[in-house]
Amino acid sequence: MNNKNEHINVKDVIQVDRELLDNISLLIDQQANASIKTIFADLHSADIAEIINHLKFDDAVYTFKLLDNETAGEVVPELNENLREKIFLELEPKNIAAIVDELETDDAADVVSDLPDEVAEKVLDKINPEDSEDVKELLQYDEETAGGLMNSDFVFVNENAKVSDAIEEVRKNSDEFEHIYFIYVLAEDEKLIGQVLLKSLLTNPPSANIKTAVEEDLIFVTPEIDQEEVADVMDKYDLVAIPVVDENKRMLGRITIDDVVDVIQEEASEDLQKFAGLSDDEEFSYSTVQISRNRMPWLFVSLFGEMISAFVLSSFQASLEKLIVSSFFIPIVMAMGGSAGSQAAIVMVQGMGTGTIRIRESFRKLFKEFRVAMLNGIISAVVLFALSHFIFHTEIQFSLILCVSLFLIMINATMVGASVPIILKRFGADPAIATGPFVQTSNDIFGLIIYLSLLAIFFTY
Amino acid sequence: MNNKNEHINVKDVIQVDRELLDNISLLIDQQANASIKTIFADLHSADIAEIINHLKFDDAVYTFKLLDNETAGEVVPELNENLREKIFLELEPKNIAAIVDELETDDAADVVSDLPDEVAEKVLDKINPEDSEDVKELLQYDEETAGGLMNSDFVFVNENAKVSDAIEEVRKNSDEFEHIYFIYVLAEDEKLIGQVLLKSLLTNPPSANIKTAVEEDLIFVTPEIDQEEVADVMDKYDLVAIPVVDENKRMLGRITIDDVVDVIQEEASEDLQKFAGLSDDEEFSYSTVQISRNRMPWLFVSLFGEMISAFVLSSFQASLEKLIVSSFFIPIVMAMGGSAGSQAAIVMVQGMGTGTIRIRESFRKLFKEFRVAMLNGIISAVVLFALSHFIFHTEIQFSLILCVSLFLIMINATMVGASVPIILKRFGADPAIATGPFVQTSNDIFGLIIYLSLLAIFFTY
Repeated sequence: MNNKNEHINVKDVIQVDRELLDNISLLIDQQANASIKTIFADLHSADIAEIINHLKFDDAVYTFKLLDNETAGEVVPELNENLREKIFLELEPKNIAAIVDELETDDAADVVSDLPDEVAEKVLDKINPEDSEDVKELLQYDEETAGGLMNSDFVFVNENAKVSDAIEEVRKNSDEFEHIYFIYVLAEDEKLIGQVLLKSLLTNPPSANIKTAVEEDLIFVTPEIDQEEVADVMDKYDLVAIPVVDENKRMLGRITIDDVVDVIQEEASEDLQKFAGLSDDEEFSYSTVQISRNRMPWLFVSLFGEMISAFVLSSFQASLEKLIVSSFFIPIVMAMGGSAGSQAAIVMVQGMGTGTIRIRESFRKLFKEFRVAMLNGIISAVVLFALSHFIFHTEIQFSLILCVSLFLIMINATMVGASVPIILKRFGADPAIATGPFVQTSNDIFGLIIYLSLLAIFFTY
Repeated sequence: MNNKNEHINVKDVIQVDRELLDNISLLIDQQANASIKTIFADLHSADIAEIINHLKFDDAVYTFKLLDNETAGEVVPELNENLREKIFLELEPKNIAAIVDELETDDAADVVSDLPDEVAEKVLDKINPEDSEDVKELLQYDEETAGGLMNSDFVFVNENAKVSDAIEEVRKNSDEFEHIYFIYVLAEDEKLIGQVLLKSLLTNPPSANIKTAVEEDLIFVTPEIDQEEVADVMDKYDLVAIPVVDENKRMLGRITIDDVVDVIQEEASEDLQKFAGLSDDEEFSYSTVQISRNRMPWLFVSLFGEMISAFVLSSFQASLEKLIVSSFFIPIVMAMGGSAGSQAAIVMVQGMGTGTIRIRESFRKLFKEFRVAMLNGIISAVVLFALSHFIFHTEIQFSLILCVSLFLIMINATMVGASVPIILKRFGADPAIATGPFVQTSNDIFGLIIYLSLLAIFFTY
């Protein structure tokens, strides 16, 4: 990406979009291709991608087709995944191949994996045969693992090479790789021996053996490792690139920090989405119906789940009629259970996500959650007792039942919120689901059952 | 960090902790300092930091004091911020100064800013005078801005330098900087002209002017820019380092990707915490009372907020008594309002966080939220009508009131959830607060008022 003449001020980059977008839309309507190309010539590929991401779908395809292959190759990795997939469905295999040829192997594999099988085969036949092999190999790995993130292009030298040989390798590959952070040192059998920082090529004499420049502490991953774990490792050790090796320590590829930053952003928004019961990222271009479909599942869980609440309430109709005041406190017992449960679930999910809480430590952590629930339950119960008694002038006996219910509900909700993530994790599921609608709704139902049962028992005697 | 002899397998790194932690705790009890030091000699500084983060406070201080200054300097940036602050309060100024001398300027500023004023002064007097100046300058900036993130040490050459001069600069600074990604090219007046990739020093002839190797597209930030925006820019343009310049484009420092990865992780967990009404990250070492204090605010918002719900219900006591069935559906109208409102708020907050939704576009987005609320409201209302009528055999009139209420409640909650983040953003507050307890609780209250008012109106006629 060197087709820009002006220095970008970040503030401009951030603010330019709406105006520019309106201009581009106008130019598309007028089919003023030359003007669009002139504007794009001055833009960074990431900005072109942002513009295309924000256009209506037909306009996005039209605009994308205007790009030359090299620019398209730079824009593709920055496009929204859904949009990218749909745009490629509109292109001919030979055009797709020409663009894929410009991509790094990890991005190429992402694009090819989204294509219909027969198109994918045609594209793989048409691209550079060596890349084609690499891409086929990458396609084996799950997209959300180290194998799915890695790029099979990397700069390496044999363990017997000199520093000058490594410099020569960097020269040869300089155009192909935008960023080179490390030169990897491999044994004859492709086993990874170590990595050399680029600066070490400058600080060591050219005639020295490359091993004198090698970094001793080498952290690597195997291809089946989950992308979130890769991100945690790179974050923890402040790495800009991490090698991926097979079980025999043969080098397969490397993962660079920019891909991992995307993973971190993605996982963070996924956690929030699960909390809101959203099944998918809502793209800017989504229609009302698409957004509705994305949100309906939680709403239905709430709707059907709370029908159970209604059923619980109806089966306690006699108690409610006898003591209408008890219905006033239904929102409180529900909300307090919901709040306490969500807090415990979020803390647990966050702890797991960043590696603080290991399964082994979970019992200790659960016991702590229990103590916290006891403490917060007692405090809340005492305050509720005072409030209900002095503001609503409820009878002492009723206030007591209410407070004991609140205490039990908070303990129950906290323990459910804290233990469901652990159980999910143990069964290999995503702990963040525990923050979602199912657990929240079931806590509502349990809360009502606890409250109303206690009331019923009290009234029977 | 080159004091490690073995190649780390990531799986080992992840699993070793609990056992190691127990061993270390044991060794601390026995004051077996030599053994602890031997174990630490084989560990990466990030692992030492993780161990210290997980120890009881007294043990953490004890262990930290065992580290030599160089290792301490590597461990400090990886410690939890709260713990780091507390550990330094236990150290003598001269020891602090010795450790601060080992830190990069951005980390040094973070440490010094947490010290009591008189200690900070003593420390600044004792460290290397040049660093002291740099640190004092960095201390001016808000911690959550580009200025607060940047490091004032960077490798640069004058615009008239040759490639060979730049190589010499890299050699000279090689030990001081763990990672060098770019050499910055400055004019006589320290104005930033451009940056040179390290690989370009290898691919250009040593006698060439440095300007032949300069990258043309330069993206920079000014020091007052918010750290989240810095993270967005570095993510968007796939940068490993970004220069920070003043209003005259004079180079002040640079921000590296590892610091930004921390920001992204931090902001992501902050968003989730706000959702759960947690005021602070819950550290592993927190006591039950500390956790309780961290969670009580939301619980009190719920408790006092839902007392208003109770008050609303009590003022509709007559209607409730007349039609006890109406109380059965209180959980449904509350939960559906809560769900729809949270979804809208989270989508809006996420869109703002990643820059998709600009203030200018908010009206368009609000209108779309309105349409989504209409659609989901109608679907939910129809389903609820059927369920209430056929399962609970409610009268048609009551089912109608219930459904109209649900529809209005969902529209109200969606619009509140979607617009509060925009309003907060416009007033410079954090939009994520909109996902927290205040908005959720007020949506509960509004929901009840809508439902019960409609019922009351219906019953009056």
